[in-house]
Amino acid sequence: MTVDATQAAVRRGRPGYDREQVITIAVQLFNDQGYDATSVADLATKLGLTKSALYHHVESKEAILRVALDDALSALEGALDEALAAHDVAIDRLRHIVAGAVAVLAAKLPQVTLLLRVRGNSDIERAALERRRSFDHRVTAIVRDAQAEGALADDIEASVATRLIFGMVNSLTEWYRPGGPVTPDRLADDVLRIALDGLDRAPRGES
Amino acid sequence: MTVDATQAAVRRGRPGYDREQVITIAVQLFNDQGYDATSVADLATKLGLTKSALYHHVESKEAILRVALDDALSALEGALDEALAAHDVAIDRLRHIVAGAVAVLAAKLPQVTLLLRVRGNSDIERAALERRRSFDHRVTAIVRDAQAEGALADDIEASVATRLIFGMVNSLTEWYRPGGPVTPDRLADDVLRIALDGLDRAPRGES
Repeated sequence: MTVDATQAAVRRGRPGYDREQVITIAVQLFNDQGYDATSVADLATKLGLTKSALYHHVESKEAILRVALDDALSALEGALDEALAAHDVAIDRLRHIVAGAVAVLAAKLPQVTLLLRVRGNSDIERAALERRRSFDHRVTAIVRDAQAEGALADDIEASVATRLIFGMVNSLTEWYRPGGPVTPDRLADDVLRIALDGLDRAPRGES
Repeated sequence: MTVDATQAAVRRGRPGYDREQVITIAVQLFNDQGYDATSVADLATKLGLTKSALYHHVESKEAILRVALDDALSALEGALDEALAAHDVAIDRLRHIVAGAVAVLAAKLPQVTLLLRVRGNSDIERAALERRRSFDHRVTAIVRDAQAEGALADDIEASVATRLIFGMVNSLTEWYRPGGPVTPDRLADDVLRIALDGLDRAPRGES
């Protein structure tokens, strides 16, 4: 069920949530007011449930965080595994993982937004940061391979180039809204277009 | 005084803060644990002050937020005004504001980090978001002008191109650490290099 459909279901009357809906709405509340500032009472109020009814769906606030972060990370890791399995050439792998990451962000915007705001304030957050770091290192290795293969310029350090490319991708959590005029496919093309070709119109070497 | 110097001063003994130091340390705490989740008592504990001693320096938690956001926004707006005053050609203005924004982020990392996390949960936050939006619109106008002047490719919408370029710039708040091996000038060059020329090594038209 989409977020809109979930909220419509809530508006229709006394809510009968499934676990996934509870988690989706909770993650949105975390993103709106901050995870640490959100109490179980806040969640119950937002959902129109008593605290004990809420505990019927989820064990704790921490469990919601863990599930949402795992959801985002598993999807990103899956896209990366897919990119590695689908291509042997590093530049093709890079194109694949950038497009895959944009697709994951568009499909799981609340979960990825939450992931990107994690600061390491608990064991759950630290474990998520560690997985994110490992993901970053694997993508950096692809960029480094593409430089070694001569497909990418190597006058920018691979780790900096990776962080800047994913700076573009991750900025989507700040401004992309699903269902708007720009599709995820188009966004992936735009990110790759800038990352690989740049926006300069002057012929190469003249700028 | 730098952040490190401030914290060293704190470690040296009973702290005698000035207002700016109090604000700097408070903003770092907001960034670590979330503004909404940070109480005045948390701030006082972090600073090793009583609450009443803290109130000698600042009127309220909200006042710290307002001052820090204004500091970040004024610096960014100043860099933009400078870019417009220094150049008549749009592409030069764009180069100037990207380099200027990177310099502001590097110089005021805690304040800009706080600004980028603002969600609009109070009048102060909403006013900051409005100023940020106005800044974005002014930069988008520069990108649009550069497209109209033929310096930038126009097959990516100016607002999307602007957001992606500033996605790279703003990602610095996530990974740049002052005093590290990469200087702000070099970072600005790297961002502009990717934004304008891209990383593809193949001659233009062959990729």
